[in-house]
Amino acid sequence: MASYRIAVIVGSLRRDSFNRKFATALARLGPADFSFVQLEIGDLPLYDQDDDDNQAAPVKRLKSEIAASHGVIFVTPEYNRSIPGVLKNAIDHASRPYGDSSWKDKPAGVIGVSPGAIGTALAQQHLRNILACLGMPTLGLPEAFIQANDSLFDAEGNIGERSRKFVQGWMDTYAAWVRLHTGA
Amino acid sequence: MASYRIAVIVGSLRRDSFNRKFATALARLGPADFSFVQLEIGDLPLYDQDDDDNQAAPVKRLKSEIAASHGVIFVTPEYNRSIPGVLKNAIDHASRPYGDSSWKDKPAGVIGVSPGAIGTALAQQHLRNILACLGMPTLGLPEAFIQANDSLFDAEGNIGERSRKFVQGWMDTYAAWVRLHTGA
Amino acid sequence: MASYRIAVIVGSLRRDSFNRKFATALARLGPADFSFVQLEIGDLPLYDQDDDDNQAAPVKRLKSEIAASHGVIFVTPEYNRSIPGVLKNAIDHASRPYGDSSWKDKPAGVIGVSPGAIGTALAQQHLRNILACLGMPTLGLPEAFIQANDSLFDAEGNIGERSRKFVQGWMDTYAAWVRLHTGA
Amino acid sequence: MASYRIAVIVGSLRRDSFNRKFATALARLGPADFSFVQLEIGDLPLYDQDDDDNQAAPVKRLKSEIAASHGVIFVTPEYNRSIPGVLKNAIDHASRPYGDSSWKDKPAGVIGVSPGAIGTALAQQHLRNILACLGMPTLGLPEAFIQANDSLFDAEGNIGERSRKFVQGWMDTYAAWVRLHTGA
Repeated sequence: MASYRIAVIVGSLRRDSFNRKFATALARLGPADFSFVQLEIGDLPLYDQDDDDNQAAPVKRLKSEIAASHGVIFVTPEYNRSIPGVLKNAIDHASRPYGDSSWKDKPAGVIGVSPGAIGTALAQQHLRNILACLGMPTLGLPEAFIQANDSLFDAEGNIGERSRKFVQGWMDTYAAWVRLHTGA
Repeated sequence: MASYRIAVIVGSLRRDSFNRKFATALARLGPADFSFVQLEIGDLPLYDQDDDDNQAAPVKRLKSEIAASHGVIFVTPEYNRSIPGVLKNAIDHASRPYGDSSWKDKPAGVIGVSPGAIGTALAQQHLRNILACLGMPTLGLPEAFIQANDSLFDAEGNIGERSRKFVQGWMDTYAAWVRLHTGA
Repeated sequence: MASYRIAVIVGSLRRDSFNRKFATALARLGPADFSFVQLEIGDLPLYDQDDDDNQAAPVKRLKSEIAASHGVIFVTPEYNRSIPGVLKNAIDHASRPYGDSSWKDKPAGVIGVSPGAIGTALAQQHLRNILACLGMPTLGLPEAFIQANDSLFDAEGNIGERSRKFVQGWMDTYAAWVRLHTGA
Repeated sequence: MASYRIAVIVGSLRRDSFNRKFATALARLGPADFSFVQLEIGDLPLYDQDDDDNQAAPVKRLKSEIAASHGVIFVTPEYNRSIPGVLKNAIDHASRPYGDSSWKDKPAGVIGVSPGAIGTALAQQHLRNILACLGMPTLGLPEAFIQANDSLFDAEGNIGERSRKFVQGWMDTYAAWVRLHTGA
């Protein structure tokens, strides 16, 4: 039975998103006592501080799902050298209302897939700044700037041979990070 | 008659947003041949790449308004040490579809109001990275991290006595920047 | 007897540096089983990769002092909206030669003093990016952008009344972070 | 005869630095009325604010060389996901004493070579933040994250066939940027 529940947030809403596929494949590499749930962020309204006292149902759902998790993995593309607005909007929502952020103390992992050579490094640099101020202990190494290519996934949608060892290593390190930061 | 049309994008949707009030007051300090139009970003959908070939009406409107402008001023709060997701979502929309960004070559100004001492400096640091990759020549100095306080606006909603000289100087510098970059 | 030895690196070489005074005062707030040593970085040469196989004596000293520590606190001013070159030079030296970085896994704290209102927030944002890639688990909250003023220190060079509670809280949180990350 | 003098600052002190070779090859692609001078930064002391009133000879030389230039190109590797301390040290020196920065209003270009796939993108993201606060109008596009490989240079040390068109395009765009910002 899973003891650790990890929320996975994918930064892209595209149906065939590389990052969504990657998030699914990544979850299969988790330890036996870890479960992974991809959270929906595509039905959130645009954040408006005037609604802080009256958060919409999808915002409440997002916040309760994060609260029920032991950690959060962000799997995100890079848009215009930063994180997608869609992802930042979700982060802004769940950080509110003031004094009731859902993110605090949740151990975080940052990873992303991109077709380009630079991967998602610049988006991750901004994301790390954001997670620091949210009080999320964030795994530093290994850095994971995954380049999408034909061999990234195998026919069953698992991480392909060439990248598997690296991604497995990332997951193992992240899992240990979660155990450390949740007092296991 | 106004020769220069400047699009003003406010990063907050809050009705009584300091940044919206500031954007309105800032526009009054513009040269006689400049006009300023605040663009609506609160009715945009969340960006989804699957819609690139079929952009929603508010996205098309945003793009055509930017295209019709000689420059863009971003007046934005800081959320979680970066720009609001709402603002990044607007930037992502208007940068698309690939090869048809509306932002390219538009001279940009970055300014923001915050109740806290750090102002909006960290958000602006990220925003400048984004604007660089969009090809927007962005005014460097003077930096404008405006702190909201009782004297920021006067009774008529103008910039108050204490800040007026600084803000007027910023506007004058930005206007010269726009003239330079639009070949005037 | 001190069980935890913390290396303290001050980003300024100025004799009467606020940050150096602050580092000294900060150390006095540490738990009984913590000791603090300010490391010298002002006698390092400029980093040159050609010397990786033959590091100068001050570089070797710096590396061995870090290796002998359980954690590192960076107390740094902000120069030109980033960390001082002097500090980055020290970081570059001790990260080398390739495969033999002294920083890896050392739990880090980031704090800084500045006369200006923005404090050292922008320098810290860059520093956090650097520490992430060095594999240093870095304390996120509380953020510590300390503003220098007449009451920051008392007559004995301790943290003044007004800031003491905040700075003590920061130290307590950092000490717990070190214990967690060194397997105590 | 050259009308435009461009200062070129290489961020690495390594003798066989890719970035130094690249800076040399890049200069050969400049317009006929542009000259390029690589500035020495390896003999600068570590910056110490106590010396602001009494700058060392190499600091004075650096400042006068920048002052005599119409623009500055930064050709820099990435060290630990930011710019080298060596480069930041040079930037800090020439920005001083307070009120007498040598950088202000000099149009800047940012480019860099790296053996890794991510190039120097993360260093450049930090560098752009720094140049903004120095008041240097900085070319945004094209971004130039050059990857070092066997074909980057030809036998004569020129930019190789495969990259020449891109690098020539970068230089042409930068030269136009300098002309625009120096009132030509």
